[in-house]
Amino acid sequence: MGVTIPQAVRKRLKQARVARLATTDVKGQPHIVPICFVLDGTAIYTALDRKPKRVQAARLRRVRNIAATGRAAVVIDDYSEDWTRLWYVLLQGRARLVTALSQRARAIRKLRNKYPQYAGGMLADDAVVIRIDVEKVTAWGAI
Amino acid sequence: MGVTIPQAVRKRLKQARVARLATTDVKGQPHIVPICFVLDGTAIYTALDRKPKRVQAARLRRVRNIAATGRAAVVIDDYSEDWTRLWYVLLQGRARLVTALSQRARAIRKLRNKYPQYAGGMLADDAVVIRIDVEKVTAWGAI
Repeated sequence: MGVTIPQAVRKRLKQARVARLATTDVKGQPHIVPICFVLDGTAIYTALDRKPKRVQAARLRRVRNIAATGRAAVVIDDYSEDWTRLWYVLLQGRARLVTALSQRARAIRKLRNKYPQYAGGMLADDAVVIRIDVEKVTAWGAI
Repeated sequence: MGVTIPQAVRKRLKQARVARLATTDVKGQPHIVPICFVLDGTAIYTALDRKPKRVQAARLRRVRNIAATGRAAVVIDDYSEDWTRLWYVLLQGRARLVTALSQRARAIRKLRNKYPQYAGGMLADDAVVIRIDVEKVTAWGAI
């Protein structure tokens, strides 16, 4: 892939507790949800945890969109009323559901390390995990 | 259009200071940016203000994507480490650049009323304004 994530951007990604994930259906309708995530090298991982869902993980819009299009975008930012302090980082790239068991286990371990809320069964060992391979990094503002 | 935005959702939208806007290019690659916005009935307006941009407004990715696809999504949420308090509102619909001068003036007036930061020339009278006609509302969590 060859993308480089600058150190300042990497630091923001490590610190961010929430990101927003955009996917698109086959008709071109965008969709966004807030996500918990980890950065691992130049990949973003996010899991379908046990926060309440209306439908099974495999039927969630984000999962169907990624299965259909193979693309996603993630943004992190931190709103401030002082607009001189605004910044965001946009990551765009390929997206897929993780099928390799070792990769899934690694992602889940990293997610549990980052989010103590995942203790106690909130994130299953066999959770559906989404991987986004970052191909493009756009950093804007006070970063 | 006939969409109804429930009062609880409308209240969140009125209070939210920032949202995230997702659009998609013709190849299906999603894009997201944080935006300032106002809700007016069942429409969301956001303007291309004078925060620093790398390219002219008309060449911005969000503008080109909307011109190409006519679709967008907006999400608001408020992250908390107490996950029982999490919520988000996802709005999906048609998107276009506002061309009617009276509609543009109204949107800019509402944006200036909401954001005092727009005083002093930060938002031009002839700014490019994006309108999203909400067709679908998804509310999740503690809302």
